[in-house]
Amino acid sequence: MTDPTTERGASTSDAGMLELLRLFRGHEAAADRYAAACLERAKAIEPLLKAFEYLPVDTARRPGPLSGIPVAIKDIIATSDMPTTNGSPVYKDYVPDADAWVVERLRNLGATIFGKTVSTEFAWRHPGPTVNPWNVNHTPGGSSSGSAAAVAAGIVPLALGTQTLGSVIRPAAFNGVVGLKPSFGAIPRIGVHPLSPSLDHVGFFARCVDDVALALSLLAGSSDRDPHGRPLPGFHVDVDKGLDPLKAPRLGIVRFEKWSRAEPEQQKAFEAATGKLRDAGAVLEELELSELDHTNWKAINAILASEAAVIFTDLVARYPDRSSDHLKSLVESGKLVPATDYLAAKALQEQWRSALGAEISGYDAILTLPAFGEAPLGLHYTGDAEYCAPWTLLGVPAVTLPVGFGKGSLPLGLQIVAPYRSDHRLLQTAKWIEAVLEFEPGRPKGLQS
Amino acid sequence: MTDPTTERGASTSDAGMLELLRLFRGHEAAADRYAAACLERAKAIEPLLKAFEYLPVDTARRPGPLSGIPVAIKDIIATSDMPTTNGSPVYKDYVPDADAWVVERLRNLGATIFGKTVSTEFAWRHPGPTVNPWNVNHTPGGSSSGSAAAVAAGIVPLALGTQTLGSVIRPAAFNGVVGLKPSFGAIPRIGVHPLSPSLDHVGFFARCVDDVALALSLLAGSSDRDPHGRPLPGFHVDVDKGLDPLKAPRLGIVRFEKWSRAEPEQQKAFEAATGKLRDAGAVLEELELSELDHTNWKAINAILASEAAVIFTDLVARYPDRSSDHLKSLVESGKLVPATDYLAAKALQEQWRSALGAEISGYDAILTLPAFGEAPLGLHYTGDAEYCAPWTLLGVPAVTLPVGFGKGSLPLGLQIVAPYRSDHRLLQTAKWIEAVLEFEPGRPKGLQS
Repeated sequence: MTDPTTERGASTSDAGMLELLRLFRGHEAAADRYAAACLERAKAIEPLLKAFEYLPVDTARRPGPLSGIPVAIKDIIATSDMPTTNGSPVYKDYVPDADAWVVERLRNLGATIFGKTVSTEFAWRHPGPTVNPWNVNHTPGGSSSGSAAAVAAGIVPLALGTQTLGSVIRPAAFNGVVGLKPSFGAIPRIGVHPLSPSLDHVGFFARCVDDVALALSLLAGSSDRDPHGRPLPGFHVDVDKGLDPLKAPRLGIVRFEKWSRAEPEQQKAFEAATGKLRDAGAVLEELELSELDHTNWKAINAILASEAAVIFTDLVARYPDRSSDHLKSLVESGKLVPATDYLAAKALQEQWRSALGAEISGYDAILTLPAFGEAPLGLHYTGDAEYCAPWTLLGVPAVTLPVGFGKGSLPLGLQIVAPYRSDHRLLQTAKWIEAVLEFEPGRPKGLQS
Repeated sequence: MTDPTTERGASTSDAGMLELLRLFRGHEAAADRYAAACLERAKAIEPLLKAFEYLPVDTARRPGPLSGIPVAIKDIIATSDMPTTNGSPVYKDYVPDADAWVVERLRNLGATIFGKTVSTEFAWRHPGPTVNPWNVNHTPGGSSSGSAAAVAAGIVPLALGTQTLGSVIRPAAFNGVVGLKPSFGAIPRIGVHPLSPSLDHVGFFARCVDDVALALSLLAGSSDRDPHGRPLPGFHVDVDKGLDPLKAPRLGIVRFEKWSRAEPEQQKAFEAATGKLRDAGAVLEELELSELDHTNWKAINAILASEAAVIFTDLVARYPDRSSDHLKSLVESGKLVPATDYLAAKALQEQWRSALGAEISGYDAILTLPAFGEAPLGLHYTGDAEYCAPWTLLGVPAVTLPVGFGKGSLPLGLQIVAPYRSDHRLLQTAKWIEAVLEFEPGRPKGLQS
């Protein structure tokens, strides 16, 4: 692989999307070499990484603001020219008639659809074969397992994922990349296999805050066909300058009661990061939000299980041998939820979404953990969502940045959260934090060849 | 009572809202005399009619496009200067802190808030004391009982009601007035006591199509605080000319299987009306829509009962002696609905709303019945909603016009329905139908003094 040297690192496989767009400007040959190198790199490490359900046949450039950028797509997101397995043997070899809304938009922006990445079964718990590129004996997290791993391994600068509980933030943290779950409703889910329509979000994996910000600025939108859509206030990311950072922000620290269960290295990395931010001029204060901590799981389960039961009841009945026990028990538990519990949970969701805005109105963002620590050992379990699910229920925007390594030398993240629809301010705050922390996890050691 | 003579009838108590607005132009004294006459008339017949929970203390004019127009408000709609009982002894003497969105809008338009009209308990089944002005031994229908009766009795030219199953269309038909239930989401329900937020609509009672059209054109809107809102395409009603009628429309006739259960006089009035419309140039065709006929009740019950259970469970537990058996059994049945049934019903609602649009895309509107016949005898039962509920479930706009009298000399209506958000076209079609039928029910005989 012959990477042209870039500003940021030794090779374009470490380069971010904005960097690449600048590099490709007037140098179409560089874009072509880059795409070919991505495909070569994917083929070389895929036997070990297993991040892809499908690799692209060609990587031809299209014109547009994302021309030359390969984007990997989570395999619950429909592509009309590639299979879309939804992580389920029921959909083996299935090729949808039409692209998902977000894939069509990416093509119109000039991006190269760079294959389909492994998802857990229908983005629920049953894992796929992907390994963590930092240590192949550990889970990459899920459900957007392949997308997180493909970005971490330097195959693509941008990948699409989805989050219903913690499926973007958790794998991003476990893989040492930046993950963004935008505000609920920011990106239409047409052509994204639903798990729980009241909780499903489309999100991104990339190498830096500017890149996820550019992705959101270009891919946010609305469609009459997604009734949950609510267009974001528009914002622009300049390819030369990136976002304007929000300097010395006021930040609330939310630990929740479960803080004591976090790995000591995760706690230490968090304290080190907040210490640096304070030294750099941020104002930090502890916040409790204990009601959110305690009441949200019952609400999430009522919403997720009952909505999933509507979606998957027929499928598990029709294909019992091709449905996992995880999916079957989700359906069974969903059938037992009374409508009144479902509606109370939906009301709580709305109420908390507004209440949180008021509660943190004096802060630019909240700092919290993305997970209890590094990626767990083994591939059978993609990790907990306890630090992600409250924010997903509320539909507020969340981003995670890599901030250090755990005891097993796997990455640790820092989650940053903001009020509903304050995505732009969240990203500007995250950009400042990223610059202050100056943490660069480097290339995963688990895949060094 | 000294009414000035108007263009339309012998007295302003028979005048429509557009007529009054023209009459008041430059004649403020006429407006003041009219308001005083309305109050005088209300006080004179209220002991018999019992349409009001509360009559206004003063009827002072405000400036605005509806200046001088008295509007009666269904008593589940909040008013900050008048009690709002919600039709329940639990709320006896309750005065809300703020006006409902629609009341605030009316005041800003210059309308005079002309008291609060009797509603069944929380707009569900337990009736209030209002009688039918055409025959005091018959129900006025419900749940917007007082609003329909107040317009029929010539007390006000416009009244607000709400419809969750048939609570505007049915009492409008039973009282021989025009009723409009606009498209779902057209008017924010902030400050309107909810019964089933997925089905609750604000609607109007008036004397002619132009009047309900003017009301909708001025009161349609949206609010961040009503998440179900979906602003209507705007339209304008000229006070001098009224709506442009849609001449010789294409009309689908929908009888449903239950047609044979309609009273013979209602069937005859319907056939007479459709015959006249055909003679005047309308194209009429029979439509089946049998799926809508058969599947909708289960869906409506799942949605209404479970949403109502969330709203009223605490209330009936806290005030068992002040809650009706009707309300208690609604709550009990709602608690038994599984979330999956609720969600399937909501999906059916969305699906049918689009499907109906496609099904009737070749027609300007649908003609159907508003009810099986005239208002039933007695005050204990406000009548069936079988011909209303399918359209309410779909959220499509519906209007009813008086077209004749039944065997008991009570009024009969004709219901006209159009695709979702085609409210303007529906009203233009209804205006043409109204002009062709030329039916004027006159002053209710039950109240002749």
